[in-house]
Amino acid sequence: MTRTVSFLSDFGLQDEFVGVVHGVIARLAPDVRVIDVTHGISAGDIRGGALALTRAVQYLPHGVVLAVVDPGVGTSRKALAVRTESGFFVGPDNGLLSTAVAMVGGANAIHSIENPEVLIPAAGVTFQGRDVFAPAAALLASGEAEPADLGPAVDPATVKPLLLPLPKVEPPLTTGEVFWIDWYGNVETNVGPEDLALAGAEAGGELELRVGATWHPARYVKTFGDVEAGELAVHVDSAGLIAISLSGGRADETLSLATGMAVTFRV
Amino acid sequence: MTRTVSFLSDFGLQDEFVGVVHGVIARLAPDVRVIDVTHGISAGDIRGGALALTRAVQYLPHGVVLAVVDPGVGTSRKALAVRTESGFFVGPDNGLLSTAVAMVGGANAIHSIENPEVLIPAAGVTFQGRDVFAPAAALLASGEAEPADLGPAVDPATVKPLLLPLPKVEPPLTTGEVFWIDWYGNVETNVGPEDLALAGAEAGGELELRVGATWHPARYVKTFGDVEAGELAVHVDSAGLIAISLSGGRADETLSLATGMAVTFRV
Amino acid sequence: MTRTVSFLSDFGLQDEFVGVVHGVIARLAPDVRVIDVTHGISAGDIRGGALALTRAVQYLPHGVVLAVVDPGVGTSRKALAVRTESGFFVGPDNGLLSTAVAMVGGANAIHSIENPEVLIPAAGVTFQGRDVFAPAAALLASGEAEPADLGPAVDPATVKPLLLPLPKVEPPLTTGEVFWIDWYGNVETNVGPEDLALAGAEAGGELELRVGATWHPARYVKTFGDVEAGELAVHVDSAGLIAISLSGGRADETLSLATGMAVTFRV
Repeated sequence: MTRTVSFLSDFGLQDEFVGVVHGVIARLAPDVRVIDVTHGISAGDIRGGALALTRAVQYLPHGVVLAVVDPGVGTSRKALAVRTESGFFVGPDNGLLSTAVAMVGGANAIHSIENPEVLIPAAGVTFQGRDVFAPAAALLASGEAEPADLGPAVDPATVKPLLLPLPKVEPPLTTGEVFWIDWYGNVETNVGPEDLALAGAEAGGELELRVGATWHPARYVKTFGDVEAGELAVHVDSAGLIAISLSGGRADETLSLATGMAVTFRV
Repeated sequence: MTRTVSFLSDFGLQDEFVGVVHGVIARLAPDVRVIDVTHGISAGDIRGGALALTRAVQYLPHGVVLAVVDPGVGTSRKALAVRTESGFFVGPDNGLLSTAVAMVGGANAIHSIENPEVLIPAAGVTFQGRDVFAPAAALLASGEAEPADLGPAVDPATVKPLLLPLPKVEPPLTTGEVFWIDWYGNVETNVGPEDLALAGAEAGGELELRVGATWHPARYVKTFGDVEAGELAVHVDSAGLIAISLSGGRADETLSLATGMAVTFRV
Repeated sequence: MTRTVSFLSDFGLQDEFVGVVHGVIARLAPDVRVIDVTHGISAGDIRGGALALTRAVQYLPHGVVLAVVDPGVGTSRKALAVRTESGFFVGPDNGLLSTAVAMVGGANAIHSIENPEVLIPAAGVTFQGRDVFAPAAALLASGEAEPADLGPAVDPATVKPLLLPLPKVEPPLTTGEVFWIDWYGNVETNVGPEDLALAGAEAGGELELRVGATWHPARYVKTFGDVEAGELAVHVDSAGLIAISLSGGRADETLSLATGMAVTFRV
């Protein structure tokens, strides 16, 4: 049986890191296909990587998800291989996998990748994407190994979770946090359409949104193109969350918003 | 029958957009291969995307071209599936596909992708690359659908064209426009070697080129390396158009040129 | 027989260059898989490309390495096809391939890619990645050609080498040069752990390193995470060379280091 590996990292595409991981997988499992989910996660941004993986996971082929955003590489944090109903997940024990694994129904088994027959010997310990995670993903994808073959079982209670903030609804206000600024400058928040509905917002209506001490007018519409150029639109984005966009421009720059900042909506 | 999907967009590689489209195609059509033409088109730059696709199309495998540069996503603009003698084209009805389709001989049939069995249900309407274009491309590539299976026929007369400026030859002058600045700072114009020939230019000879009010000396040569470091070269580029390069440097920066600006050549 | 093509270049991912090379290979050799090692080599940086290829080559599948960093494209420099014990190498004769070919045991045969049946006719001569190197790589990978089928043999003594600087050990000092700054700001030098050992350094101990006229304290550890945030770590990197990192930050920026600059370590 051959599964696809879906690979996400903060490796960037400037260096040969991503290509080397592809090479390791191709050498160990020549028939396995690798999909690059993205390698553009900000360096060391575990939450950003976890959120991207969670948005993507339901669209990836069943198989192996290989995720590496790993500022603690080479320290005592574990390297995990996780079995779920929707395939395997491989990555560091730092919260990166948590929300995506939860999204597909949780872990059936978690193992620590330590088996010396799996690891690739190397002079340094700083590229475990190559030396630890890639061979594990290749063996799981080719069907040559199960998580239990990679190392000892890990107590789920000891696995590092990812804590995500919840929005606060106090009609007519809803206060949330910026989860993600995308390539186009659209600003995704942790607020859902059900939160705005609780606060009394209606699709097609007017809203105000506060960033810092300033209120900005916006319209609650279906898509960017439903407002005039230069107007702010509040809409449900492709992950089902409330996002802010600027028709013909970048909402993040106009509102001086960055990941983790607070935003309040007022109906 | 399995065809390759050649995929171009302005999605960038920072987010998971490209990977999710690969995932959707892999789930629907596991045997279909996807070639990434580029995802580095400037956000919303329809003409830039169309020109890149036109330069590339003759080198891509016959199959499906999937192109998404779509500032009007979610509005009433149609999502098109086009049949040509050289395979299928899938993308928004905003001019993006026009010149590439023309380059391979024009459309035999054009359909609007609307069939609800094809579309992927989603909370928001802002990621039609994932929800509309990817499943259409997957079904066309796997041979499970023809354009007519995706939705109603579209009158070719109603499809949005892409209007490209023509150069003006008035010997000894030729005036054109910048089409593309490449990664190396080379400046491609809409002028052809036949235009410069009409204006009296001869390969190997001297030229002057005007940007704004300033004339710059240049040599009309075969390649960058045929002039000394720091000299401007005018040459036929890899798409057969006249381009300006600076040996050992960036012509765009030295000449302060950007896409869409005018350039005049004088023999 | 079908081999994988491992493809490295300075083409960047903004334009369609990389996709067009994939397209050419897919048209000529539909069953050949292409791994993108990286296309993020700085424009024209032959040494940077050679070092990346050398770090990667032992992890790539046996097959064809296609490498294009080619500021002399279209001039009289040769286009090479090289046979080694570990597969074929294709690229310009400018030193780019030299260290990677040496790493896998050296060349058995070197040919100049000139056979007109192999080359793709084109208006301009500036995209030999597409017109010369890609078809050569495709034919070698599909098994349809051997290097000797691509053009005449080349005298190895005439092939351009890549000269790399050696570190200088004068206990308690070791002076080297910056080889590579990676995506995370880690600074790889040309110094090996055996050089530092000769100079008297011991793993776990203190070191000082000099950039320009300034000495900085550092610890010689196993990985980034073994020092406190804000401290400099000296460690063996994933290529087996001595690198400098800053826990929780970028060593290159803190030390104002760039490729090619000198660094001195003092035990």
